[in-house]
Amino acid sequence: MNATDPVSNLAALIRCPSVTPAEGGALSLLDNLLLPLGFAVERMVATEDGTPDVENLYARLGTDGPHLMFAGHTDVVPVGDEASWSHPPFAAEIAGGEMYGRGAVDMKGGIACFVAAIARHIEKHGKPQGSVSFLITGDEEGPSINGTSKLLEWAAAKGERWDACVVGEPTNPNQLGDMIKIGRRGSLSGRITVHGVQGHAAYPHLADNPIRGMLQLTQALMDPPFDHGTDNFQPSNLEVTTIDTGNAATNVIPARATASFNIRFNDTWTAETLRAEIIRRLDAAAADGALRPDRTPVNYEIVWADRPSHVFLTRNNALISSLSGAVAEVTGLEPKLSTTGGTSDARFIKDYCPVVEFGLVGQTMHMVDERVAVADLETLTRIYETFIERWFGHAATE
Amino acid sequence: MNATDPVSNLAALIRCPSVTPAEGGALSLLDNLLLPLGFAVERMVATEDGTPDVENLYARLGTDGPHLMFAGHTDVVPVGDEASWSHPPFAAEIAGGEMYGRGAVDMKGGIACFVAAIARHIEKHGKPQGSVSFLITGDEEGPSINGTSKLLEWAAAKGERWDACVVGEPTNPNQLGDMIKIGRRGSLSGRITVHGVQGHAAYPHLADNPIRGMLQLTQALMDPPFDHGTDNFQPSNLEVTTIDTGNAATNVIPARATASFNIRFNDTWTAETLRAEIIRRLDAAAADGALRPDRTPVNYEIVWADRPSHVFLTRNNALISSLSGAVAEVTGLEPKLSTTGGTSDARFIKDYCPVVEFGLVGQTMHMVDERVAVADLETLTRIYETFIERWFGHAATE
Ligand SMILES: [Zn+2]
Ligand SMILES: [Zn+2]
Repeated sequence: MNATDPVSNLAALIRCPSVTPAEGGALSLLDNLLLPLGFAVERMVATEDGTPDVENLYARLGTDGPHLMFAGHTDVVPVGDEASWSHPPFAAEIAGGEMYGRGAVDMKGGIACFVAAIARHIEKHGKPQGSVSFLITGDEEGPSINGTSKLLEWAAAKGERWDACVVGEPTNPNQLGDMIKIGRRGSLSGRITVHGVQGHAAYPHLADNPIRGMLQLTQALMDPPFDHGTDNFQPSNLEVTTIDTGNAATNVIPARATASFNIRFNDTWTAETLRAEIIRRLDAAAADGALRPDRTPVNYEIVWADRPSHVFLTRNNALISSLSGAVAEVTGLEPKLSTTGGTSDARFIKDYCPVVEFGLVGQTMHMVDERVAVADLETLTRIYETFIERWFGHAATE
Repeated sequence: MNATDPVSNLAALIRCPSVTPAEGGALSLLDNLLLPLGFAVERMVATEDGTPDVENLYARLGTDGPHLMFAGHTDVVPVGDEASWSHPPFAAEIAGGEMYGRGAVDMKGGIACFVAAIARHIEKHGKPQGSVSFLITGDEEGPSINGTSKLLEWAAAKGERWDACVVGEPTNPNQLGDMIKIGRRGSLSGRITVHGVQGHAAYPHLADNPIRGMLQLTQALMDPPFDHGTDNFQPSNLEVTTIDTGNAATNVIPARATASFNIRFNDTWTAETLRAEIIRRLDAAAADGALRPDRTPVNYEIVWADRPSHVFLTRNNALISSLSGAVAEVTGLEPKLSTTGGTSDARFIKDYCPVVEFGLVGQTMHMVDERVAVADLETLTRIYETFIERWFGHAATE
């Protein structure tokens, strides 16, 4: 196979129905693209009780440093309502200059372009003066338990070390060249239960309405703001995502109310200091009891969700300037260095080497009719190719 | 049958399994008790689309005024977990000086005693100088649509007029003689829906979390208090009985949140002025938008529950003093004149004549092992008998 054309690379990847946790032929295809370029390709199956086994791939070209990693995922989210798609989700049909298919931008497209970029680099300049590797998981859209984090551990245990990483997630809100992600907010979730005493609405003194306490606790979580943002980050933001009582009887005061919340937090906080602040707010609101007729403390408990995502910020100049310079050179745009949006697997990679994210335009990701402008595939390939040259050149002069 | 013994009257009534809307033989039994006393007994079946037909009973002794009505219900709530009862719920077994059975206190017991009281009165003094009637429904514990309100309408249409009414609901919290109810708070319920825009918790600016608005609205309903009570009534009290979102995904901002509330209100308000006050509070909180990042108004709607219960207070001295005097004479206790607790069918009767409520001790009503002290049946019978004498005597001197 000739790997230098991102359009044919992507078409072949889209035709692999690799909905998490299915491999769907996508990693085997990648294997077939990378082997002829000289990569040593390894497959790694990760397992954990209670989750499906997931196939992952690690491929390295070269044995020396400096060592550049490209990271991503071939798994895709389900197609949703297949009948609503203008073109079949696994057919890679092109119409109006756009290729349709699940994963087109998130993120088989990014992988297709990086493969094409390194293939072109080899064609023009030979192998890079150092190493390039692909760290590709099949568990990014799922629980992310048998994916990037285990693959990194496994590779590091074999002695792999990296100097920089680019994740090919779709980072551009509107136009290719808009935005490089240089960090991510952390994410922390919890579930509060307020205990009351069930009773008749006409005899509130014989009951204890947990909703009164729940209103105070959730209000304390939302107000005042946790911070006002930092140099590189938006303000931390908490959303109460559900409050539930499930009481169908209008005349009955319920026994219990629950609420869940999720907070996206910046580098003002760590997951630990934020947990402490949340407990402080909840305890203060509970002790206040202002909405309760007898002003007794609110009886509540909190359960934290497993595995918070930690906040991180990458400050590595060689990596950031090589990438933003490549974007500017190819597109003429000055990409914004951003830390907005959700979490990504970069949160695992940051423990091993500096990591940034840059890929396609994300507008149709996870939607019906996910699609990519064919022209963008060529442009992104040229950006990645330019970046590879710049990064190894930069590394050589250090 | 000899109707002068309240214990045998009640045992026979308990053995009729008259769970709403079943008649269960209870009204026929009453028919058989009242006919020999000289009552003209009529049965009236009330019907309405979407509800089960319900049998009701109206019985009158005498044709002239003054006219005293005794009102109540023979229907009972379901037995709940029958295996948990110490004695079968429809067997009327006596143990430890108490008679067990569903309806023992709510309120076959009250009926059994009033029947015994009038039977004794007739035995001792002959028929009262005026009329006594029984207005007995089989739909008090159900939707209360085919019960007291239709029975009153039906009787009034026939020309029936009353001068006073005693409802035999269990009004005493702890001890026979504690409490006469001379009014009831009103009850009004509504359901609020707040509309938002669903989205990802990491991109709150692309979503609109309805929980933010819901917290403001429900808080505005609960604080400040609606009033501080009046001479005869507790403060009005609002309980939010449920808040629900039903969002299982921690990372997703929901599209909609709902809440229901119920307010028990005193004579500071009518249902109409209270609705207006609630709308005023909700609109003010919605317009404020303080918890919303952009401070735009909260998009909400409210649906009021059908048929609010209207507040009322009875001030008729002949009725109240005859009853409280009878209680004091028999028990030595000064009964509290109260307006606490839930609604009762007195809310319908108050449109026809002055009405008060007095019956047994309510502690076990609606519970497993509902039961009544046998001694209380004799005491209540004597109270009712004394009341009948006093009321007709009072009426005669007016
Ligand atoms: Zn992705
Ligand atoms: Zn009752």
